[in-house]
Amino acid sequence: MSDNLLSTINYPTDLRELHEIQLPLLAKELRDFIIDIVSVKEGHLGASLGVVELTIALHYVFNTPDDLLIWDVGHQAYGHKILTGRRENFHTNRQLGGISGFPKRSESIYDAFGVGHSSTSISAALGMAIASNLKGDFEKQHIAVIGDASIASGIAFEGLNHAGVTDANLLVILNDNAIGIDPSVGALKDYLTAVKNGKNPRQNNMIKSLNIDYSGPIDGHDIFAVIKELKRLKKIKGPKFLHVITTKGKGLKQAEEDQVKYHAPGKFDAKSGEIHLKSEENLPPKYQDVFGLTVLDLARKNEKIIGITPAMPSGSSLKFMMDALPHRAFDVGIAEQHAVTLSAGMATQGMVVFCNIYSTFLQRAYDQVIHDVAIQNLPVIFCLDRAGLVGEDGATHHGVFDLAYLRCIPNIIIYSPLNEIALQNILYTAQLGLDHPIAIRYPRGRGVIANWQSKHFGNYEKIEIGTASCLKKGTETAVLSNGPIGKNVTLALANLNNPDTIAHYDFAFVKPLDETELHTIFKTFKTVITLEDGVISGGFGTAILEFASRNNYSANMKTLGIPDEFIEHGTVDELQQYCNIDVKSLEIIFSTK
Amino acid sequence: MSDNLLSTINYPTDLRELHEIQLPLLAKELRDFIIDIVSVKEGHLGASLGVVELTIALHYVFNTPDDLLIWDVGHQAYGHKILTGRRENFHTNRQLGGISGFPKRSESIYDAFGVGHSSTSISAALGMAIASNLKGDFEKQHIAVIGDASIASGIAFEGLNHAGVTDANLLVILNDNAIGIDPSVGALKDYLTAVKNGKNPRQNNMIKSLNIDYSGPIDGHDIFAVIKELKRLKKIKGPKFLHVITTKGKGLKQAEEDQVKYHAPGKFDAKSGEIHLKSEENLPPKYQDVFGLTVLDLARKNEKIIGITPAMPSGSSLKFMMDALPHRAFDVGIAEQHAVTLSAGMATQGMVVFCNIYSTFLQRAYDQVIHDVAIQNLPVIFCLDRAGLVGEDGATHHGVFDLAYLRCIPNIIIYSPLNEIALQNILYTAQLGLDHPIAIRYPRGRGVIANWQSKHFGNYEKIEIGTASCLKKGTETAVLSNGPIGKNVTLALANLNNPDTIAHYDFAFVKPLDETELHTIFKTFKTVITLEDGVISGGFGTAILEFASRNNYSANMKTLGIPDEFIEHGTVDELQQYCNIDVKSLEIIFSTK
Repeated sequence: MSDNLLSTINYPTDLRELHEIQLPLLAKELRDFIIDIVSVKEGHLGASLGVVELTIALHYVFNTPDDLLIWDVGHQAYGHKILTGRRENFHTNRQLGGISGFPKRSESIYDAFGVGHSSTSISAALGMAIASNLKGDFEKQHIAVIGDASIASGIAFEGLNHAGVTDANLLVILNDNAIGIDPSVGALKDYLTAVKNGKNPRQNNMIKSLNIDYSGPIDGHDIFAVIKELKRLKKIKGPKFLHVITTKGKGLKQAEEDQVKYHAPGKFDAKSGEIHLKSEENLPPKYQDVFGLTVLDLARKNEKIIGITPAMPSGSSLKFMMDALPHRAFDVGIAEQHAVTLSAGMATQGMVVFCNIYSTFLQRAYDQVIHDVAIQNLPVIFCLDRAGLVGEDGATHHGVFDLAYLRCIPNIIIYSPLNEIALQNILYTAQLGLDHPIAIRYPRGRGVIANWQSKHFGNYEKIEIGTASCLKKGTETAVLSNGPIGKNVTLALANLNNPDTIAHYDFAFVKPLDETELHTIFKTFKTVITLEDGVISGGFGTAILEFASRNNYSANMKTLGIPDEFIEHGTVDELQQYCNIDVKSLEIIFSTK
Repeated sequence: MSDNLLSTINYPTDLRELHEIQLPLLAKELRDFIIDIVSVKEGHLGASLGVVELTIALHYVFNTPDDLLIWDVGHQAYGHKILTGRRENFHTNRQLGGISGFPKRSESIYDAFGVGHSSTSISAALGMAIASNLKGDFEKQHIAVIGDASIASGIAFEGLNHAGVTDANLLVILNDNAIGIDPSVGALKDYLTAVKNGKNPRQNNMIKSLNIDYSGPIDGHDIFAVIKELKRLKKIKGPKFLHVITTKGKGLKQAEEDQVKYHAPGKFDAKSGEIHLKSEENLPPKYQDVFGLTVLDLARKNEKIIGITPAMPSGSSLKFMMDALPHRAFDVGIAEQHAVTLSAGMATQGMVVFCNIYSTFLQRAYDQVIHDVAIQNLPVIFCLDRAGLVGEDGATHHGVFDLAYLRCIPNIIIYSPLNEIALQNILYTAQLGLDHPIAIRYPRGRGVIANWQSKHFGNYEKIEIGTASCLKKGTETAVLSNGPIGKNVTLALANLNNPDTIAHYDFAFVKPLDETELHTIFKTFKTVITLEDGVISGGFGTAILEFASRNNYSANMKTLGIPDEFIEHGTVDELQQYCNIDVKSLEIIFSTK
């Protein structure tokens, strides 16, 4: 990086020394800087490119960090990080020990609120603004920057509904680019599009209906216009709403043209924008594609099947079904609560609903799982993608609580497939018709069976609910693993000199447990070790403890999994090492048994 | 009940035989019937009185149960139950083995969707409507009746946002009476009030912004007008929205005038409407009042204290603080998600936030507890009211999952007070400043210390975080109880002939556990019994199992609590008997140890 304007900006105070006329050049340099680093180090690209001008304008006009700035979700906050003391460290983004991919309070005083999941910014900023009023500070500004996909989520509406009856100094900036990770959906999006196109008269204004001062829409890439409007709004007390139109991926041609792919494109050529394609030949498939291809295949044969995703058609691979059977596969937007209750409603009418939600986002619909699905014992099929440690997205995104928070719910079946074949077979089994809801959890990324698609896809076998299986016999110690992390056990055992004493069981069902097999195990082995890709507290291993206690078994037990702390970002391998559930750690644990 | 029109109506088919002109008389009889029974048997009154005409009109115009009718929340569905086969059994309402206080699929084919928690009806009805379209049934109607308090909750907005881009035969009826359990709040409520008063021109219409056909407002007590409008809407395809104005408590003067008290007034005189007041002298206080009085007292001394309730000011007794310090106590409406993230935002600015949410409703904000509070380790003070078995509200309302779903979250402290003194002291301790969020769970209803207010209120003592205490010594068996249900242990032990062998410990902290005391216990006693007012699976007893396993203790263990099934309605005593955690059951269990 040669000497330039950006290299002189360590903090927003430096930025505020610039003359407004210099800012377009800074915007160009900031954009190039983001592209240069992300092209090599990977990360989220399009969202940050889209708000470069807005980011500069906000820090230029407002007195951050005294004025409090919250970036909803945080995918778009790279420019913010670079301008607030983290330019030099930006190359460590999302790496173990490096800066987080999301704003984070413990990382910088400029990160007013930690984010990762969407749609929290209005509520958080309103809380701050009310606190300022109570403290007698009526000058401080509290700013939430939220996208048009995020603002359609329920909690954002709840925040606006409250804001409209307060006199809090809240500025909500709608960053309207008509896309989240996938294109935005829903009636609100159509409404915003109409506003943008001048088709909705100002007086028919939803935001004004909520008693909030609406302004815009303005061009978010016209930095002078943005600054002018922010300066005007800075002087206005009370809740305000600014509608800004931006282009996701702005400044990189390919990123503007293929906004879904360039949301997080992996490595690419910073000059040409071309993504470095890795050969996928002979690689095992992604669990996501096993889900997507299998559900489509099943749906073609079973017309009762419906697919639902809250805003993750690409990430979940439900896209395959949405493209092929669009009337039966629904992207409902960032609306996990609605997705679950909608599924419940469909299930009452005999539909077979695959409701695909990332494990960490099902936390948003926990009550709906209990109250609308489980109490009524409706056979909704939850597919919990990104279960377990997810890697670089870090603490906000690890899907490690699901076994604990689902296991306490009556009626629900919980299953985690050992591999791709088990995943396709449980999807097949579920759509045959179960008497209960089921949660099928599987991780982000690739499985272990390279020839799955050519050899196994479509060769369905029904799985008996509540059965475990013995993968390897042994004499002294039984290792009970749940789900794909079982491969770590297999690899660790293969590396041991004398593995004959150790048996390995695949307990894919956390609920109901295979009690027959468990009785045999506890009568046979002196030591029982459990392994799961989830929190130890309340999880799979604990279910085995409860069984042993109920039945007065007294084997030595050890429960392996995620400890009772929030796990930061890093590669999955690094994080497994940290939790002592990687292959090497298991070898050590097994060899001391 | 003398012979009358209502006695001839067993099902809606009978209703449809009547001439329209007979319906006002039926409405009067239905209202009297509800008043007569609820005045003696107790239950929810005001909501059902408010929708008598609407209920009759819906079943008169639509072809229930083929047309699918969902009552949001369900407090207002008594008339519906009486007209759909449950008139004769209505006197068993909310009793053990009787009909449920809420619509319930397993109870009647006319109850299209089970409810209890608010704001689910739009999503559920939309799911049914989409399913009907897919099945080629374009005539079936799908109706959600939702109140103005419920429609302001996030999931309802998510449902509307989706509905507006479908062609589903969905009819959303807004039952606008400007009150939930307490008066409605928020900007949407102000907007609806303006619409009612003719102050908002039709074109400035929030519902139309979402591409939904809006009609109204109409007078919900003019049965002919309602029928006429429903007949018109029945012929219109696609999503529709009817705004109906009603009066909660309609037809009983006192219920109209004091809508909060007559939401569920207890026993009253059916003729005069006067509530039968029970003498409260010498009764222990309600935990709710201990919370409400203590928080107000603390707030007067600590100006950082803020109180937040999502729509339960009366039920939680935060009302005391709202009345005395209105600028520091907030009812945010039915918006649990927002309530939690708003609390988190305030906590970042140093405010000491008491966020009071019923245990069962915190399920609605589970992700916000994890993502916005616990990850950032913000010291929000959650007060979980109605924890444990709640009695007559039944399966949808028991607060029995909280220990399990909170215990797996890092950073959080979980405490359940043994009695009123412990509750006031933990509230005092929490506002002194903790390094972590804390969840304080306590049950519905009265405590055990009759002179709490005169002798103890305000005599604060700081509680050491993570400490248990021995309530009674023993030699063979240790009983570890969590929270107020510990009184059952005390009573059971008092009834035993030879209780000397049994020790009793109050483990108020489920997290962090008092490990010092636990080591002593496991080294001293042969048998350890745990007792909690929550699900066994993953709860307090399981935490003790995990401790014992981690430390290789091998005592006999028994975990008592709620079994792995949804517990229906009945009195708390009856339900405790069912779960074997009442005094008598404990006596039997203890005497066999």
